[in-house]
Amino acid sequence: MAKQQIGVVGLAVMGKNLALNIESKGFTVSVFNRSPQKTHDLLEEAKGKNLTGTFSVEEFVHSLETPRKILIMVQAGPATDATIEQLIPYLDEGDIIIDGGNAYFPDTQRRSKELEEKGFRFIGTGVSGGEEGALKGPAIMPGGQESAYKLVEPILTAISAHVNGDPCCTYIGPDGAGHYVKMVHNGIEYGDMQLIGEAYHLLQSVLGLETEELHRIFSDWNKGELDSYLIEITADIFSKTDPDTGKPMVDVILDAAGQKGTGKWTSQSALDLGVPLSMITESVFSRFLSAMKEERVAASKILNGPEVKPFDGDREQFIENVRRALFASKIVSYAQGFAQMRAASDEYGWDLKYGNIAMIFRGGCIIRSQFLQNIKDAYDREPALKNLLLDPYFQNVVESYQSAWREVISAAVSQGIPVPGFSSALSYYDSYRTERLPANLLQAQRDYFGAHTFKRVDKEGVFHHQWF
Amino acid sequence: MAKQQIGVVGLAVMGKNLALNIESKGFTVSVFNRSPQKTHDLLEEAKGKNLTGTFSVEEFVHSLETPRKILIMVQAGPATDATIEQLIPYLDEGDIIIDGGNAYFPDTQRRSKELEEKGFRFIGTGVSGGEEGALKGPAIMPGGQESAYKLVEPILTAISAHVNGDPCCTYIGPDGAGHYVKMVHNGIEYGDMQLIGEAYHLLQSVLGLETEELHRIFSDWNKGELDSYLIEITADIFSKTDPDTGKPMVDVILDAAGQKGTGKWTSQSALDLGVPLSMITESVFSRFLSAMKEERVAASKILNGPEVKPFDGDREQFIENVRRALFASKIVSYAQGFAQMRAASDEYGWDLKYGNIAMIFRGGCIIRSQFLQNIKDAYDREPALKNLLLDPYFQNVVESYQSAWREVISAAVSQGIPVPGFSSALSYYDSYRTERLPANLLQAQRDYFGAHTFKRVDKEGVFHHQWF
Repeated sequence: MAKQQIGVVGLAVMGKNLALNIESKGFTVSVFNRSPQKTHDLLEEAKGKNLTGTFSVEEFVHSLETPRKILIMVQAGPATDATIEQLIPYLDEGDIIIDGGNAYFPDTQRRSKELEEKGFRFIGTGVSGGEEGALKGPAIMPGGQESAYKLVEPILTAISAHVNGDPCCTYIGPDGAGHYVKMVHNGIEYGDMQLIGEAYHLLQSVLGLETEELHRIFSDWNKGELDSYLIEITADIFSKTDPDTGKPMVDVILDAAGQKGTGKWTSQSALDLGVPLSMITESVFSRFLSAMKEERVAASKILNGPEVKPFDGDREQFIENVRRALFASKIVSYAQGFAQMRAASDEYGWDLKYGNIAMIFRGGCIIRSQFLQNIKDAYDREPALKNLLLDPYFQNVVESYQSAWREVISAAVSQGIPVPGFSSALSYYDSYRTERLPANLLQAQRDYFGAHTFKRVDKEGVFHHQWF
Repeated sequence: MAKQQIGVVGLAVMGKNLALNIESKGFTVSVFNRSPQKTHDLLEEAKGKNLTGTFSVEEFVHSLETPRKILIMVQAGPATDATIEQLIPYLDEGDIIIDGGNAYFPDTQRRSKELEEKGFRFIGTGVSGGEEGALKGPAIMPGGQESAYKLVEPILTAISAHVNGDPCCTYIGPDGAGHYVKMVHNGIEYGDMQLIGEAYHLLQSVLGLETEELHRIFSDWNKGELDSYLIEITADIFSKTDPDTGKPMVDVILDAAGQKGTGKWTSQSALDLGVPLSMITESVFSRFLSAMKEERVAASKILNGPEVKPFDGDREQFIENVRRALFASKIVSYAQGFAQMRAASDEYGWDLKYGNIAMIFRGGCIIRSQFLQNIKDAYDREPALKNLLLDPYFQNVVESYQSAWREVISAAVSQGIPVPGFSSALSYYDSYRTERLPANLLQAQRDYFGAHTFKRVDKEGVFHHQWF
């Protein structure tokens, strides 16, 4: 019997859709699932396609050409380890295991090391784009041995999304690099969604806009600099009506955000690396606050805000100012996320290529946007760019939008509308461009109470002052 | 030979000062250090005192009365584990090891479990107050078996700071509770220092104040609601002159903050627990940003801020507004920190007593202040208080100070002065008291791209909408 080119273990919706995607590109695929029903269902659904169902790990592994390429699509964590353990007895040296789940990057680093020591090869890859992306073309962020990547590259690039003919898949770097970049992608996704939420909150609260007007505004925004998947679906969401009540869909949905933890990981890693990831972290905290729905409802009856006067300014100008505040804040959010990848690359020796990462984010994934082309261009101009804000294009946008940005935040602050994302982004911009911050006082305090010592502005060395 | 009442291992400055403190309260103390020189030095320094030097672990352990009480004051991490390992062979069942280092609380939880399984007792205790506090009276936060605490209580309460006759030491809770509370204390300390720094930055940048005026202002502030150790030393710092240059000390100190990691741990734990700890986390990020000194100097030459007009308002009013912004932000910071302790108490089953914790923070430690009495009073009024902002005293302060708070942030935002602490605190206040946040849109987006489902405002259940 002819051997299949690749195998997929785990046939929940992501694994199933990736298997179908791979098959549709002309590759032969073996599939395996712990419970055979999912395999039977897929074979039934995919009759006539080049999918080979297998019903034991041994049968699965032996159905593959060598070096074997096995894509694992099971739950991140213990299930991934268990699946690897089950495969190992049947593998040969040089076989390639690809983990396409949402693994926490230190787990990928560990698995990479363990499997390499046993003579196998391991790729941990981020796959972004949800169920639909898995079927029709996701963004793919593979990390691991480059030799192993070369062997699976034809398959991964074929199934990925494409933008202007370029695949949204490129080699990211060793061991955990791919899952790390996917994690930061998700953090950036949290940031984008938070900023859109703040814009919505402002337009609704300050101008009292209804969903039809919001639909028009976000549709307009999607034609310009903010052109992106998330703005596009936001516009679409505002056009949807609840079939049960006839009300706008957004008005019947509870304001308590869920999350699956990757935003949290991004913030925790930034804290470990010493990277100021304030905007994305505020997005994570905002989800927490939104989820405290009952407590907020109770607090809203106790804690009073400021007195608010009806808006009497230029409404179209305010809408444009909110757009500018959103775009300037978004630039800061990406500047922070890319600075974090840079710090991680230095810390873990990954040699990340930021322009390539921006390029593969352009399609397939949730944060896909025109804007990522601007980031790619910035890294083309200066591959060693320390911070996106220093690129002439972004510098120029932020400088020319800053007065709108500041006005919007002041309006929100005076009216009691929370804008944690907008204001943490601005605080970052203002801190980053400030030559002298008040941390001199902080160092004096630390030396005063703990003899922690300080550096001086006028000479090298480490000093302690006798304060008392 | 008579047995000693307690032993201290590790005679660096904290261990040495605690040993001297214990001895000064009339207890007999054995001391031991890995390198004997430190022991010889201490015995020399403490001639005539009830300190017994020992020069092997065996001699040290055998010099103590049973059940033995051994205070470990070595570096947190592997050194603590190594010290415990060396002690174990000589210990008897029921002996008590007390770790007074800055342990990460999961380590304390692990050690507590391991030692309990071996029949020993373990106390992990926070000790705050620096070198001077260790000698003259620190705040002490012991966690572990309550039976073990009872045996060391006479010593720990005797050596602790006292406020109005009450010791700044109380039983905190099981296993890691003491080190957890110390960690949050340090996070709060980061927050306090950040807020003072922002007030300083504003007064200096907006009003152009010199250190003499800043000394007067902070001295004034220390007579009112802000009365605290950190405000007191800030006032004192502004009065100090650099002997080398004759300039104010603060002006010769480099604005690059150091840190030892406990602030970071606090934020990471908040992220794990789902607690919105935004203000303290902004303080951690601000330290990171300050430490990027060279990058900021370079960025300051590239990125322009807003045009700033000279201040033409009421100077004394602005100073008072900054004071109010600082106090309101401080209330939010403590509200977040105490909410985090509450979440940790629920998660780990510690049954923390928030009023008692506020009480022991009143003396000995870095964040000691009058303000902590207000927190104690709030928990006396309502032990189950969900959030400090809901206490009538704090509610009233924040509501009456909010217009000043909002004005100060607007002024900073329009003038390009970063106030990440003030504004994240205000965002929290405004989010917490908002009945309906824009997370309904976020849930719509998540359901749109990932079928993550949502709840509704009008009926129970979990729903998915066919968006397209």
